[in-house]
Amino acid sequence: MSHSIKLAILGLGTVGTGVINLINDNLDELKRRSGQDITITEVGTRRHRDDIDPNIMQSSDLMAIAASDNVDIVIEVIGGTTLAREVIMHAIKNGKHVVTANKALLAEHGNEIFAFAEEHHVHVAYEAAVAGGIPIIKVMREALAANKVEWLAGIINGTGNFIMTEMRDKGRPFADVLSEAQALGYAEADPTFDVEGIDAAHKLALLASIAFGIPLQFDKVYCEGITGITLQDVNYAEELGYRIKHLGFAVRRDGTGDDAATGVELRVHPTLIPQDALLANVNGVKNAVLVNSHPLGQTLYCGDGAGAGATASAVMADVMDLVRVLGSKDADDKSNNGHHVPHLAFIPEQLSDTPILRAEQMTTGYYLRVHAYDNPGVLADITRILSDAGINIDAILQKPAHKVGQVPVIILTLPVVESRMNLAIEKIEKLDTITDKVVRIRLDELA
Amino acid sequence: MSHSIKLAILGLGTVGTGVINLINDNLDELKRRSGQDITITEVGTRRHRDDIDPNIMQSSDLMAIAASDNVDIVIEVIGGTTLAREVIMHAIKNGKHVVTANKALLAEHGNEIFAFAEEHHVHVAYEAAVAGGIPIIKVMREALAANKVEWLAGIINGTGNFIMTEMRDKGRPFADVLSEAQALGYAEADPTFDVEGIDAAHKLALLASIAFGIPLQFDKVYCEGITGITLQDVNYAEELGYRIKHLGFAVRRDGTGDDAATGVELRVHPTLIPQDALLANVNGVKNAVLVNSHPLGQTLYCGDGAGAGATASAVMADVMDLVRVLGSKDADDKSNNGHHVPHLAFIPEQLSDTPILRAEQMTTGYYLRVHAYDNPGVLADITRILSDAGINIDAILQKPAHKVGQVPVIILTLPVVESRMNLAIEKIEKLDTITDKVVRIRLDELA
Repeated sequence: MSHSIKLAILGLGTVGTGVINLINDNLDELKRRSGQDITITEVGTRRHRDDIDPNIMQSSDLMAIAASDNVDIVIEVIGGTTLAREVIMHAIKNGKHVVTANKALLAEHGNEIFAFAEEHHVHVAYEAAVAGGIPIIKVMREALAANKVEWLAGIINGTGNFIMTEMRDKGRPFADVLSEAQALGYAEADPTFDVEGIDAAHKLALLASIAFGIPLQFDKVYCEGITGITLQDVNYAEELGYRIKHLGFAVRRDGTGDDAATGVELRVHPTLIPQDALLANVNGVKNAVLVNSHPLGQTLYCGDGAGAGATASAVMADVMDLVRVLGSKDADDKSNNGHHVPHLAFIPEQLSDTPILRAEQMTTGYYLRVHAYDNPGVLADITRILSDAGINIDAILQKPAHKVGQVPVIILTLPVVESRMNLAIEKIEKLDTITDKVVRIRLDELA
Repeated sequence: MSHSIKLAILGLGTVGTGVINLINDNLDELKRRSGQDITITEVGTRRHRDDIDPNIMQSSDLMAIAASDNVDIVIEVIGGTTLAREVIMHAIKNGKHVVTANKALLAEHGNEIFAFAEEHHVHVAYEAAVAGGIPIIKVMREALAANKVEWLAGIINGTGNFIMTEMRDKGRPFADVLSEAQALGYAEADPTFDVEGIDAAHKLALLASIAFGIPLQFDKVYCEGITGITLQDVNYAEELGYRIKHLGFAVRRDGTGDDAATGVELRVHPTLIPQDALLANVNGVKNAVLVNSHPLGQTLYCGDGAGAGATASAVMADVMDLVRVLGSKDADDKSNNGHHVPHLAFIPEQLSDTPILRAEQMTTGYYLRVHAYDNPGVLADITRILSDAGINIDAILQKPAHKVGQVPVIILTLPVVESRMNLAIEKIEKLDTITDKVVRIRLDELA
């Protein structure tokens, strides 16, 4: 036990308290694994907490803690993108390693933060920022390091997954389940970040960078929420052998195919996936990420995407990695920094400028729900329009009318470029026999 | 690209060839991630291969390659426990880092090999030895490093899982599916290692060591195969909401409870698990490991457990980790070796002598199939015996007689220490009304 590694925790909310509890519970295990002593020396908190070990210095001056001589690693769990950013930059400038769970901050300012960290020869670790306790950052950066990632698909927002699971299992409408999720504390009072997919988009931006070796480009993530998903569509999907999940996709496209572009698709949207896929059976607040890479093939990682214990586990895994760096003899040799795992998995000068595709360039299958007057020619009209647009139909379900004279037609298509689907839907909606806007939800076979 | 890391591959079977293919396919990606050049300089093969790059030296003298000045990392993929062991020890002695996929060798001789590696300040990496392409070694050693592992359960033999999946899905008997697995190349001509659980026991010994920080103790793994599983039991299990999988379990017991012992259970056996558990839906040759740790909770890792691509992915992930070690300035400072990830996740002097429990001390739930004459008192007799033994019944299913006068009774129990179950079954089998041996299969709720 030659070194004692000194930690500062900034923020004593759920996660900060979780980290303290983890260290209290598992200190023996941490020492047995690392061979080092690990101590919390300072915590940043707005008001004094009487339940904290009196040997730990408490202060509301986060900037002072970030520069303290009594701190090796700064754990930022205050959240937000203003103060958190200032504090992290200050810690980096003062030669501290940083561990953060702040997905919004990294997705929006990560390029700048990581570059600043490289410049100051410190590491900014962020396992807890994506999928909570699932070690997807380590897996993608290290375990899959020899693979070429083709695509990944993830349930990376627990609130959204809880809502989709309850709608399907209990047959309850969206608004109803959202209220329950808020009552249970799964969803915020303002649920926009979760249900509109913004939180998932933050995480997807991080996953895509380490999958493909591209800079963080949160602003280019196409994002569609689940607020428009109805029970009707959930049930039709089930009947056809699919389940609707709110997924984030990062897909490499090589430009093969008729009108396919070369680049990366970054998209968050409700998606029909096959019922028997493991990903379709990840329920409640659980998260999961499915990665398809060459030559490994598909691997799935599943667990708790949030909560004190799961997030603390990820934060402390990062700390344990840093403990090895700090314990190594060349920890003070700043010139040797190049041989850590690069922040975005690829060495900075090798990040690529592969374009992020626009929505119209993206290729997915579709579920279409079309409402029409019960006219014998309508199905022929619709299928002709799709066929003329070069869109292949995989399945059709025509249900009995639920309003007099109106029948919903459900159509599943094979993958097609969105611009082509847009034109086809425009034409379908101009048919005299069509009574409503066409409802469309993307579909992926995960093959 | 300051360094060129020189690899030797010993053995050019499926895996060795897979490694060469991976490097050919993904060399750009490897360089973009590592910032280093990676070259295969020598391969060990019994006969010359014309399809290998002529710049690579080919030789059948494995010991010479293991000591070659032109090699930094030795990749051992010849298998077996005799020559492989000699070659690995020779490589270590000559200061080479070693990457191996050899589960049998490590499970049986790992304590000695790892100690020798520590002594010579080199690393022996073995991601490919357990669950193929699933990065379970990295996850357990690094990503879960802050957790206390409570238990793990794994489908860690693809052949066994293929057989159990086919029996259930197609209603085909064991022997029939085994023949098909052999024809497909999933099972060896001598399938003993797979179907008797020995291969799974090798992997379980490795997983248990890194989960709990105990030395490798393959000889103490309790091991039960799947050769005795009948379609009848598969179907009864399904009817009761369970599925039979061949699982490896490593469980920490703290001695609470009536007759519970303190120690670790290491066991491989067919197990009924709930149908809706993700683990129950991992089908075909796929592998998966479910880990329950504090404070993280349950996480699941799933993917291909064998095959050229998956195994090469794991081998090269180890190589990429070593590339960072070799690229670091203190690579030649042998005294600094203590700060790598310990071979068995815990530093050697902190490995614990926690006892491995004997079969009679292990605690599991049970599925019992009892055949009795259709006598009104028989169910009362059986349940009284179980109740007297303090065994709690969770469910009973009494099916109509399939032979005249005989009815199978299916009983599911809550967890009970095996010694108590042994006594109860002995008593049940002595009842006059019982016509056959009691069939028992373990059951776990994975809760």
